[in-house]
Amino acid sequence: MSELLTDGERMIRWAKDLWDYPRSLTGHGTHATLKYLKSINNDLNLHLFKSGERVFDWTIPDEWNIYDAFIEHESGEKFAKFSSHNLHIMGYSVPCDIHLSLSELLPHIYTQPNQTDVIPYVTSYYADNWGFCMSEKDKRKLPTGKYHVVIDSTKGPGTMELADLVIEGDSNDEIFFSTYICHPSMANNELSGPVLASALIQYIKHKYKKPKYTYRFVFVPETIGSIAYLSQNLDKLQDKVICGFNLSCVGDERSYSHIESRMGDTLADKALQAALIGLKNVVTYSFLERGSDERQYCAPGVDLPLCGFCRTKYGEYPEYHTSADNFDIVTADGLNGSLNVMKTIIDAFEANLFPKINVKCEPQLGKRGLRPSVSQKGFYGDINTRSDFIAYADGKHSIFDISRKIKKNLRLVIEEAEILKKHNLLNP
Amino acid sequence: MSELLTDGERMIRWAKDLWDYPRSLTGHGTHATLKYLKSINNDLNLHLFKSGERVFDWTIPDEWNIYDAFIEHESGEKFAKFSSHNLHIMGYSVPCDIHLSLSELLPHIYTQPNQTDVIPYVTSYYADNWGFCMSEKDKRKLPTGKYHVVIDSTKGPGTMELADLVIEGDSNDEIFFSTYICHPSMANNELSGPVLASALIQYIKHKYKKPKYTYRFVFVPETIGSIAYLSQNLDKLQDKVICGFNLSCVGDERSYSHIESRMGDTLADKALQAALIGLKNVVTYSFLERGSDERQYCAPGVDLPLCGFCRTKYGEYPEYHTSADNFDIVTADGLNGSLNVMKTIIDAFEANLFPKINVKCEPQLGKRGLRPSVSQKGFYGDINTRSDFIAYADGKHSIFDISRKIKKNLRLVIEEAEILKKHNLLNP
Amino acid sequence: MSELLTDGERMIRWAKDLWDYPRSLTGHGTHATLKYLKSINNDLNLHLFKSGERVFDWTIPDEWNIYDAFIEHESGEKFAKFSSHNLHIMGYSVPCDIHLSLSELLPHIYTQPNQTDVIPYVTSYYADNWGFCMSEKDKRKLPTGKYHVVIDSTKGPGTMELADLVIEGDSNDEIFFSTYICHPSMANNELSGPVLASALIQYIKHKYKKPKYTYRFVFVPETIGSIAYLSQNLDKLQDKVICGFNLSCVGDERSYSHIESRMGDTLADKALQAALIGLKNVVTYSFLERGSDERQYCAPGVDLPLCGFCRTKYGEYPEYHTSADNFDIVTADGLNGSLNVMKTIIDAFEANLFPKINVKCEPQLGKRGLRPSVSQKGFYGDINTRSDFIAYADGKHSIFDISRKIKKNLRLVIEEAEILKKHNLLNP
Repeated sequence: MSELLTDGERMIRWAKDLWDYPRSLTGHGTHATLKYLKSINNDLNLHLFKSGERVFDWTIPDEWNIYDAFIEHESGEKFAKFSSHNLHIMGYSVPCDIHLSLSELLPHIYTQPNQTDVIPYVTSYYADNWGFCMSEKDKRKLPTGKYHVVIDSTKGPGTMELADLVIEGDSNDEIFFSTYICHPSMANNELSGPVLASALIQYIKHKYKKPKYTYRFVFVPETIGSIAYLSQNLDKLQDKVICGFNLSCVGDERSYSHIESRMGDTLADKALQAALIGLKNVVTYSFLERGSDERQYCAPGVDLPLCGFCRTKYGEYPEYHTSADNFDIVTADGLNGSLNVMKTIIDAFEANLFPKINVKCEPQLGKRGLRPSVSQKGFYGDINTRSDFIAYADGKHSIFDISRKIKKNLRLVIEEAEILKKHNLLNP
Repeated sequence: MSELLTDGERMIRWAKDLWDYPRSLTGHGTHATLKYLKSINNDLNLHLFKSGERVFDWTIPDEWNIYDAFIEHESGEKFAKFSSHNLHIMGYSVPCDIHLSLSELLPHIYTQPNQTDVIPYVTSYYADNWGFCMSEKDKRKLPTGKYHVVIDSTKGPGTMELADLVIEGDSNDEIFFSTYICHPSMANNELSGPVLASALIQYIKHKYKKPKYTYRFVFVPETIGSIAYLSQNLDKLQDKVICGFNLSCVGDERSYSHIESRMGDTLADKALQAALIGLKNVVTYSFLERGSDERQYCAPGVDLPLCGFCRTKYGEYPEYHTSADNFDIVTADGLNGSLNVMKTIIDAFEANLFPKINVKCEPQLGKRGLRPSVSQKGFYGDINTRSDFIAYADGKHSIFDISRKIKKNLRLVIEEAEILKKHNLLNP
Repeated sequence: MSELLTDGERMIRWAKDLWDYPRSLTGHGTHATLKYLKSINNDLNLHLFKSGERVFDWTIPDEWNIYDAFIEHESGEKFAKFSSHNLHIMGYSVPCDIHLSLSELLPHIYTQPNQTDVIPYVTSYYADNWGFCMSEKDKRKLPTGKYHVVIDSTKGPGTMELADLVIEGDSNDEIFFSTYICHPSMANNELSGPVLASALIQYIKHKYKKPKYTYRFVFVPETIGSIAYLSQNLDKLQDKVICGFNLSCVGDERSYSHIESRMGDTLADKALQAALIGLKNVVTYSFLERGSDERQYCAPGVDLPLCGFCRTKYGEYPEYHTSADNFDIVTADGLNGSLNVMKTIIDAFEANLFPKINVKCEPQLGKRGLRPSVSQKGFYGDINTRSDFIAYADGKHSIFDISRKIKKNLRLVIEEAEILKKHNLLNP
């Protein structure tokens, strides 16, 4: 029963359901993925772009569909079967039905030479090409002789799909989340993002019937998808978005990563810093180490106030972009850790973005039972979070600034804000 | 003869005179303390607040007077005699004349478990309560049996007293000093502050008949007193005060401490940093480590440009808030060190807050005898303070900024300003 | 044949030609030096200042000419002969033809006690005095007896000379270079500067027929010369100069030094930082460690956006201000290293000071052959400089800011700008 699953388990179930779909920039695997995500949140809106359409400096590519692919040795033995793992086919491989020798075949075989057991993830989106990916070990076992290469794909004019979903709030100010839906069977660097975003949508809808802020979620093929989305929505997003996150690789348990925005000082950067205070293995990366759609959202002239959020950052874990990026590393706990970070940020926005204490000087906490009545050194307990929150709740520091200033996790700061609000010590 | 005492010795003498007065937020000990301070500087003004009066979020407490207190064992032996040390009574203990057993008594006995030889300082200002303080060692020796507890105190409607003193200068801009007068017999965390403030008042009056700046000193019960003072003077202080210090624990010889203002960047922060350059054992604490009346003066909506000054900061020395805070740790040298720091800051204001060199390019120091005439490497002596002072005396850097920029103690910088002024190289 | 010499060799040849001229603030040695520099760049303009003329707080000194000088022992042996090394005479020594004993002579002998083999460089510009400089070793060998001291010099009303040269560009905005011409036979702390400036002039004229920016070079006696030049040109320079460098000690191979401007944040500081990224042994000195004409150009009220550039900074190498500052330490490679740094900065100004990418989102590099078409982890090569350049080419970051932000040497950044310009991806 879905109701009995934890948030993390629910996200894992969705990710496992989505595992096999042969996603790419375009094609039936991506379409099916979006349809599945719409089954979780049925107000997801799909948007189509035609092949050849110009989006800023880019052109929407041909639609690619992959049905089957394999390499068959003259002995009848088959290798690199798409049906056994969809990473075996290089993304956007053109159709193929040819016979050739091993030496003619080898230039089309891609392996990860320094990781001999895994199938690498390789694409050639914007140049006609074909190829197979396999482990270095398996490549070395290919017998000499003749091969029959079969790639049952189509590549031609069609559509590229992406989706968005908006939860309207009292304010036009938007909190923006983007994630991608274009990688085939990989768990962290693909599925963790869309399932986290889907869980966040459910969280907001369930907890905040009418939230203060408007929340926008987009699910796009990486790079070309975010560019396409921006090409149609740039002015609106620049007007409305006050904080955004690109969600990528959010499912493992190893670390928490913040990829800074281009200037490193947006509300999103500050919010994420605040939400990560005190967590284990927090790593901050400068924008020079970016790699996902923050590249587009933060580009000069776009400059949305957005930063990247990962557990272990893409490129920084060995399983990245290989068949080893699976449910051995992406777990319910890992996904739940990410969910909690994002929930905390959302709760902070919904609580009070600029808390302001409504008395001059310190309030008398003792008379409200918020501080012990007997005063002796060493016997105060931890009242610092409370008094430090009050000290910076001046209506000028955002709740994220306060958290960073007093060096306490944003969740604790939200809790203090709630307590002081109950005692009528905060401006509404 | 008072005239033959050093400044430090004079401050020690005052502190010893004040030692025994049973100070608290209110009552005769505090009244006597203010009267004594008025005998040092007779233009001190006393201000009264009535019990129950509202001051911002707080209420002036009842007046508490303590005359005697002890615990008498059925054997006739007396313990925790107020007459032997006034820390034995918990501050604001209600009157008491009861008989009880040891086990009934013990919950009312306060000790410092990790410092077994000292009497702790404990108060319960805002909840009705009674208690005795003693050393952990003495507590363990309490015999079983019946006890008679006597607390000859009164607690009821009355007044709370505080005092201020203003030395008028040519400018309405004020330099502000606050210290407290509410702790019983402790030397550093009580008496060092008022005696330093008293010596500073004498220094200013004696050295500057009509100073450039106006100087305001306030002597208040900690927390409630500063809040009360602010409740009546906030607008005026916000208009006038350009720099202020809370003086606390300024009498030991161990270190010099700067407790930063809320934002850490006021003129007071800069002045204190400058005056501490090159001194031994300088420690800077962020506002998160505040604990005295800077909490009120820097609160949101108050935000006076004030920081805290201590030798060893409250809470950071083992004798703090115990009977060991006495004249073994507070010395003439310790107090004099603090006095020199504050004199330096005052002298800087009175010298030239924004020195401006009145020639273009470097002045020719050689022709004025301010630089050696023969030029050879290694034989210049230290002319850097002079030329560095000149380099930053642009009328935009305050004398404190210059000191910090050139990394020389403020006293040296004042001396350079005086020399260049004599040679007519500074704007008036 | 001059045409076959490298830039570095050409600069060495000029420096060797200039070696023997007995330079000082004034006099025939300095005049001859300027004449020689004019023979390299014949649009150099000489400017005269009369002795006694007031320049800001200073007065132009008497003209000093030195023709010969020696100390002759009664035995006929001569010491400290000006004809063997012109450092033997203390700069600005008054004429002398006297007989005296060794003990009377010794106060007029200057040595560098901690470097016993070298002749120190000593001057007494602004007080009447005479002296000889010799090695500590030679001084110890002076026999007892009578001496005849001969100084064939003149000191009296005359002129002080300096020179400038302006290369007009399309913009009135000026890039400013200053170096000095007042030290006698020393290679790094004298000749390296003027020969570097001369080579730079030739470089600009040859490479940029009509440059975008205007370039101004000044050759002055240190301190009094820059003050004199500023006294006549301050308003104009403050209007026009956007970036400037003081060139001093630019000929050895040991390190690259940046002496920051007074506030440390001018365009010159940023340009130099960018041009030094990745070079070996880069050292940054604060303005507190200044010592050459940046003292005047950055003085309060002057404040040209200028910083100091050296290989190993004056005062920081043992040969400084001694006879050991010769062509053992100043080399063609050393000078050429400095030339390349300054060429890079000039090329950056001429390329595009505020590059701005002219597409929204990232440009599609693949379709232009600027990025590999197959995407696999570990196989991208270094495309970071390109994409990072694009990320910060927002028209607000200067090319120097971009270089510093992406931590790549300015030369690489210029190259990226050229490539992207060729592909019409940059605003003109």
